[in-house]
Amino acid sequence: MDAVLSYLKRNEGRFLDRLREHLRFQSVSAQSQHRADVRRCAAWLGRQCREIGLEAEVHATAGHPIVLARTPRRPGAKRPHYLVYGHYDVQPPEPFELWESPPFEPTIRRGRVFARGATDNKGQHLAHLNAVEAYLKTGTDLRCDLTFLIEGEEEVGSANVEPFMRKHRRALLCEAAVISDSEMPSLEQPALTYGLRGAIGMEIVLRGPARDLHSGSFGGAIDNPAMVLCQMLASLRDAKGRITVPGFYGEVAPLSPGERRRLAAGSSSGREFQKLAGVPRLFGEAGYTPGEQRSARPTLEINGLTSGYQGEGGKTIIPAWARAKITCRLVPDQTPERIRSLVIRHLERICPRTVEMRITPRRGGSLPYLMSPDSAEAQAALRALRTSFGREPVLIREGGSIPIVSEFKSILKVDTLLVGFGLPDDRAHSPNENLSLAAYRLGSRFSACLWPELASLGRRR
Amino acid sequence: MDAVLSYLKRNEGRFLDRLREHLRFQSVSAQSQHRADVRRCAAWLGRQCREIGLEAEVHATAGHPIVLARTPRRPGAKRPHYLVYGHYDVQPPEPFELWESPPFEPTIRRGRVFARGATDNKGQHLAHLNAVEAYLKTGTDLRCDLTFLIEGEEEVGSANVEPFMRKHRRALLCEAAVISDSEMPSLEQPALTYGLRGAIGMEIVLRGPARDLHSGSFGGAIDNPAMVLCQMLASLRDAKGRITVPGFYGEVAPLSPGERRRLAAGSSSGREFQKLAGVPRLFGEAGYTPGEQRSARPTLEINGLTSGYQGEGGKTIIPAWARAKITCRLVPDQTPERIRSLVIRHLERICPRTVEMRITPRRGGSLPYLMSPDSAEAQAALRALRTSFGREPVLIREGGSIPIVSEFKSILKVDTLLVGFGLPDDRAHSPNENLSLAAYRLGSRFSACLWPELASLGRRR
Repeated sequence: MDAVLSYLKRNEGRFLDRLREHLRFQSVSAQSQHRADVRRCAAWLGRQCREIGLEAEVHATAGHPIVLARTPRRPGAKRPHYLVYGHYDVQPPEPFELWESPPFEPTIRRGRVFARGATDNKGQHLAHLNAVEAYLKTGTDLRCDLTFLIEGEEEVGSANVEPFMRKHRRALLCEAAVISDSEMPSLEQPALTYGLRGAIGMEIVLRGPARDLHSGSFGGAIDNPAMVLCQMLASLRDAKGRITVPGFYGEVAPLSPGERRRLAAGSSSGREFQKLAGVPRLFGEAGYTPGEQRSARPTLEINGLTSGYQGEGGKTIIPAWARAKITCRLVPDQTPERIRSLVIRHLERICPRTVEMRITPRRGGSLPYLMSPDSAEAQAALRALRTSFGREPVLIREGGSIPIVSEFKSILKVDTLLVGFGLPDDRAHSPNENLSLAAYRLGSRFSACLWPELASLGRRR
Repeated sequence: MDAVLSYLKRNEGRFLDRLREHLRFQSVSAQSQHRADVRRCAAWLGRQCREIGLEAEVHATAGHPIVLARTPRRPGAKRPHYLVYGHYDVQPPEPFELWESPPFEPTIRRGRVFARGATDNKGQHLAHLNAVEAYLKTGTDLRCDLTFLIEGEEEVGSANVEPFMRKHRRALLCEAAVISDSEMPSLEQPALTYGLRGAIGMEIVLRGPARDLHSGSFGGAIDNPAMVLCQMLASLRDAKGRITVPGFYGEVAPLSPGERRRLAAGSSSGREFQKLAGVPRLFGEAGYTPGEQRSARPTLEINGLTSGYQGEGGKTIIPAWARAKITCRLVPDQTPERIRSLVIRHLERICPRTVEMRITPRRGGSLPYLMSPDSAEAQAALRALRTSFGREPVLIREGGSIPIVSEFKSILKVDTLLVGFGLPDDRAHSPNENLSLAAYRLGSRFSACLWPELASLGRRR
């Protein structure tokens, strides 16, 4: 183990170069002009895995390639097997003008590397590759088998991972999955994320008049789709911050006192959170703390509104149509199917006949996730965090969604250990995305400490 | 008179070319990139006036130029003087994709010319210029003096006309003003518009988080500016279609039974109106007919909504800001100042402290207008309509606003004769704006018939 940790120390410069190389690929999965960049990034990642000593293949899919790499297996040995998941695709970098340095020219400032994909997710999966390199290059026995599954479509819904997993199911069967694609509250508070929210999304379009109409000649005698949309959306949340869709909270599991204590320990203060969000004041469902509201309670959010005249000055029209994009975040035991149908049914019920409504549900959606922080795997991860960071770890529930986690559960029947090296101000999905260099180092170190802890649990299935 | 009418007949082709030339100027007053187009349009109009035989000047203002043109005065003659007002600026053409032919390439289909500004207002003021050309070129005595005031900022609030009128007040003093910038119910129902609604406009911007935030990590514990905007706007209109701003109806004069009868006679049926608007069903303030709702009752309309992600698919964000553009239409005796301050005060009262609100009132605004249809001028206009169209005219109140009318009242102390050549489906302010070629011809003919009728009233002030 000392050899592994000292290898990591000695190679920090190389690992930083590896990260910068990875970040230069414009692997934007959502934008078709970057298709070749995505492919080049996958090929590079495959080569990196092989140089490290892994057996790696880059698999074509109906969409972007999946990189599958594994530690060399010892013939006959029946060792525990763990799956490490990551994604090499990134969010679109727009709006460019808000970046302090170009999104695909990784730049180091104030101990952080700034680039699109730095924290989400290139830096985080490289940390695991760095650790396995240290084992393989120092000839240290890992005492378990590892498989890396690194995909290129996480930011666009991971449509091709499920069929891939079903096809390669036998090779992927494992004790548990490990994902580093989340955050810790600070470098002093390494964290195990034991819960995630699920999500659904949809687009609502209301059509009123056949075309934009003069608000003078027509106004007063016909309905305004923008007003109808406002009235419908406004009615979905009451003054106490509760969603009014009938049945919305029906499947929500109540928070136990123990759970609430745990969430309180892992949450930043309301004041810190307010500063981080940059809001004039906080707002959320009455009766819950901000930490609970954003991780353990369901939401309905408007992500976008579009209607009528968007330009400079004014235009005296009644818009022909109005559109909203909305998402719901789900918590146990809500399901995407149930909440989607409740929301759609309710919208249909409240939509007046002065407009025509079309709802387009977004494909997929993801289940909420909750694992027991008392499980053997969770305890192993907490020990590894303690050793690598030298700090007492916290337990958190993350408000975001990692859809693959529910697929690991349904296809491979395993839990996922979520240990992220992001920080609250890493600006994932935003301009000036960054990764703390200390978090990158500590993440590699954590990964090195994790495998002996997990291996010592033995084979359990 | 016969010489005048036959000149109009002979020159129909030329008048159509003149209209097409006028329509090719992209004189969009609201968009700064069209500043030069606006100026070129004014210069062209000045040259047209001079070719016709008018004494014309293009006056620079703090905004867009004003074209002032007058019939050559006879020295010493004290003849009645009438003012003809028009505007050569146009509404923004967006959304481009809904135009069947490009907005600034006038195209004739089905007896109509399609282009931005065709009916609002280029075709309508050209009809008057065509008529005066017929008098001047045939040497027929007009028996009155005319002044044309054609401005370039009607669509953005006419901010520079008032100072201009005050400066040139002596030259503009007249018996009455004449404006053709409204509609008639059909070619068979020429109309005198004896009332207009006033208008105010404003833009509301709500700012929440410092930047777009991840709706998973933050959602639930901070407010969503798009939701707050929806809730604020939604609350401004109740289920009966009444505006809930306290005091909004305080100054509204009740409709007399006679007035309601007159409005009923000049209005299309609810069914026709619904078809014209292309709406699934009508909606308006309870207790009033559609004809009343859209001409004699005040409104508050959303003209545009913008927030968050507008593109394809979804983006899981809480938007940093949300914006609405709204307008109110006013009826006697509401005033822009009073309604503006009531609306702003109410919005400030209902805005929660989870967002920061900035309201930008649009400059200007206009008073509602109502004249007696029994006045000598009104009766003269009705006679000219009867002669030129060969049909019995109707009396209507128009739901739109022509702000200048209240300035003629306050600065020049005169009423305005509103006789428009637009048709209900002329799509003013919408894609595929058009003017009926028959209306353009009949409008020129009406103008030719109007001056003898008015001249015969003599000088009365």
